[in-house]
Amino acid sequence: MSHFFQIQTAFSFAADNDFLENDIRVKPDLDALGALGDAGWYCIRASLWATDYQLPKFVTALRNPVKNKAGVILSCGGSLHWEDGKVAIFHCSFLSNLTMDITAIGTKGTLHVNDFIIPYKENDASYRTVSEAWFTDVDLEWNKKPSEHVINADLPQEVLMVKEFSTLVDGIKWRGSSPDKKWPTITRKTQLIIDAVMASINKGFEPVEVS
Amino acid sequence: MSHFFQIQTAFSFAADNDFLENDIRVKPDLDALGALGDAGWYCIRASLWATDYQLPKFVTALRNPVKNKAGVILSCGGSLHWEDGKVAIFHCSFLSNLTMDITAIGTKGTLHVNDFIIPYKENDASYRTVSEAWFTDVDLEWNKKPSEHVINADLPQEVLMVKEFSTLVDGIKWRGSSPDKKWPTITRKTQLIIDAVMASINKGFEPVEVS
Repeated sequence: MSHFFQIQTAFSFAADNDFLENDIRVKPDLDALGALGDAGWYCIRASLWATDYQLPKFVTALRNPVKNKAGVILSCGGSLHWEDGKVAIFHCSFLSNLTMDITAIGTKGTLHVNDFIIPYKENDASYRTVSEAWFTDVDLEWNKKPSEHVINADLPQEVLMVKEFSTLVDGIKWRGSSPDKKWPTITRKTQLIIDAVMASINKGFEPVEVS
Repeated sequence: MSHFFQIQTAFSFAADNDFLENDIRVKPDLDALGALGDAGWYCIRASLWATDYQLPKFVTALRNPVKNKAGVILSCGGSLHWEDGKVAIFHCSFLSNLTMDITAIGTKGTLHVNDFIIPYKENDASYRTVSEAWFTDVDLEWNKKPSEHVINADLPQEVLMVKEFSTLVDGIKWRGSSPDKKWPTITRKTQLIIDAVMASINKGFEPVEVS
C-alpha cells in the first residue's frame, strides 16, 4: 500500500488595532501577502519539513479568505497535495488567539506540536508522538498515550539562527566555503507554495500547480 | 469586528487488511459513505458542537480523496464555511495512525483535544485551553501555557449513552414525555453536512450549499 500522510497546521495570533491599521504586513504596497506571507509561511514551511522538503504537485486555497479594505489577507487557509497522496491543510490568521499547531499523521505514527514557532518556554520545547496506537479490548480507551519528548536548549533558537548565519558568512569570507544551498532552497520552495496559494485565491480557488 | 473562529479536526485510524477488504464501511452496497460516513462523522459533529450546532452555509471537499477499487472513500477531507466567517477544516482516514484531534481557535481563546472520540483512559478525559496568550517582552516565549483540565468519569461514555437512551424511552413509554428533539436534530445536521461533502466530491470539488 502506498504511503499515507496528512498534516494539519495552524498559526494565528490576535493582532491589535495598531497592527491591523499600521503594520507593514497589512499594507498592499509593503508586505502585500498579509497573513499568508507572514503566518502562513510558518505553516507551509512546517508542512515542507514534515515531507522532507518535497514540493507538492498542486495547492488549493480555501474559499472566503478575510481581507482588509485594501485587499490584504488577514486570514486564509489552503491545502497542499503531493503526487503520492500526502495532504497538508493549513490555516493562518491575524484575527484569532495565539495558536501554533502541527498534527502530522503517518501510516504508523502521529506527531503533535503546539508551539512550533515560538516555544512556550525559551529553554525547552516539547512534542508528543505515538506509534501504532489502537484501542484496548472493549474499545473504551487507547492502548497507549502519546509520549512527551522535551528538548532542552542552552541557547534560544534566535541565537542559534544568528550563530548559523555567522558561521556561513565566516565560511565564505575566510575559509573558502561555497555559499550554503540548504536555506535558500527551502526558502525558495516555501515562497513557491505561498505564490501558488495566492494564485489560487486570485483564480477563484482553483487548484494551482507548483512548479 | 466580527467573530473569528477556525476549527481543525482529524480522525484517522489504520484499519487492518481484514477491515479494508471485508468491513461494511468499505462496501458500496452497505456503508457506502466509507471513511467520510464513519470517521468524518465525528469530525463534522465536533465542528457543529464547537459552533453551537449552527449549520454552515456551504462545504467544499478537498481534492483527491483516496477510494478503494469499488469507489468507496478510504480517506478524504473538506472545509465547512459559515455565513459569519467561521471555518472548519477536517480530515478523516482509514489509512493513517490512530488520531483524534480538535483544535478550535476563537478570537480570544484556543481549545486543544487529542482524544475526542475514545478517551486515552476510560475514567478521565482532558482538554487544554489558553486565553489571550501573547509573547513575553522579547518574543522568546509565551506569557502563558495552555492549562489542562481533567474531567473524571465514574462511568464510561458508552454507559452514559445507554442511560440517556433508556431515560428517553422510559419518558415516552411511562411518563408521558414527547420524543426528544436534541439528538435527532444534531444527527440530521451532521448527515446534511456529510451529504454535502459527498455531493462536492461528486461535483468535482465545487462548493455545495447546506440547506
